[in-house]
Amino acid sequence: MTGDIVILAVPYPALADVIAVHGESLAGRIVVDITNPLDFQTFDSLTVPADSSAAAELAAALPQSRVLKAFNTTFAGTVGSLPTTVLIAGDDTEAKALLEDVITSAGLQAIDAGSLRRARELEAIGFLQLTLAAGEKVSWTGGFGVIA
Amino acid sequence: MTGDIVILAVPYPALADVIAVHGESLAGRIVVDITNPLDFQTFDSLTVPADSSAAAELAAALPQSRVLKAFNTTFAGTVGSLPTTVLIAGDDTEAKALLEDVITSAGLQAIDAGSLRRARELEAIGFLQLTLAAGEKVSWTGGFGVIA
Repeated sequence: MTGDIVILAVPYPALADVIAVHGESLAGRIVVDITNPLDFQTFDSLTVPADSSAAAELAAALPQSRVLKAFNTTFAGTVGSLPTTVLIAGDDTEAKALLEDVITSAGLQAIDAGSLRRARELEAIGFLQLTLAAGEKVSWTGGFGVIA
Repeated sequence: MTGDIVILAVPYPALADVIAVHGESLAGRIVVDITNPLDFQTFDSLTVPADSSAAAELAAALPQSRVLKAFNTTFAGTVGSLPTTVLIAGDDTEAKALLEDVITSAGLQAIDAGSLRRARELEAIGFLQLTLAAGEKVSWTGGFGVIA
């Protein structure tokens, strides 16, 4: 596994295996959690404790990595006149700046949403978007767009 | 106090007084909680328990009322090409429909975001919008718009 930024493009239940198998090689790297840890049976709760987040759990399991939360709210961006905006949460300012560079180089917009504690709110937004789409209140390409 | 729908246009810390003074007269009415129960000293947490919400607390204190959460995420709507969309959470389907009628009659859009449990996610969105505005990541008229 190479690259300074590793985006874990896996669903939440797979994170435990990723940690077990690749945890050592993730040391020193920027690790991006994109998961929405939803109970997909009920669509009525997250599967992480209310005062925590998938990203906080990942950071605790990978203390040698620089864990960021990003992309989990990025459903809707390109619809209409809104640019796609990726919200990033994390405690490592340099890591967030590096990820922002990658995102803006790809023609998207990025917003530093604060510390890793804000991953809880990002996961709440992802959760609500998924429930609205599952309930056909918005389309699967709809949801929340960010207006600067 | 008259009217079937009462919108408590007060900040979260004032709810306790509203309940104490007006609780009895709110019985049987639809009561709309619009608060964002933020710790405005730190902008780093909500002041309600992580597994609860201001709306859930209000509903517990007003068991004879039909409590809805709405309007707390409605910052940005009219910016650009997005219509203003009000997200509503509550357990009383008829009450939600009545509030939706009021909202759409006023020319806005409304989305039923699910049960009162979803007030937690609506408050997370309001919280994140306020932190982004306070951190000058978005303007005070920016934030999240809903794309159907």
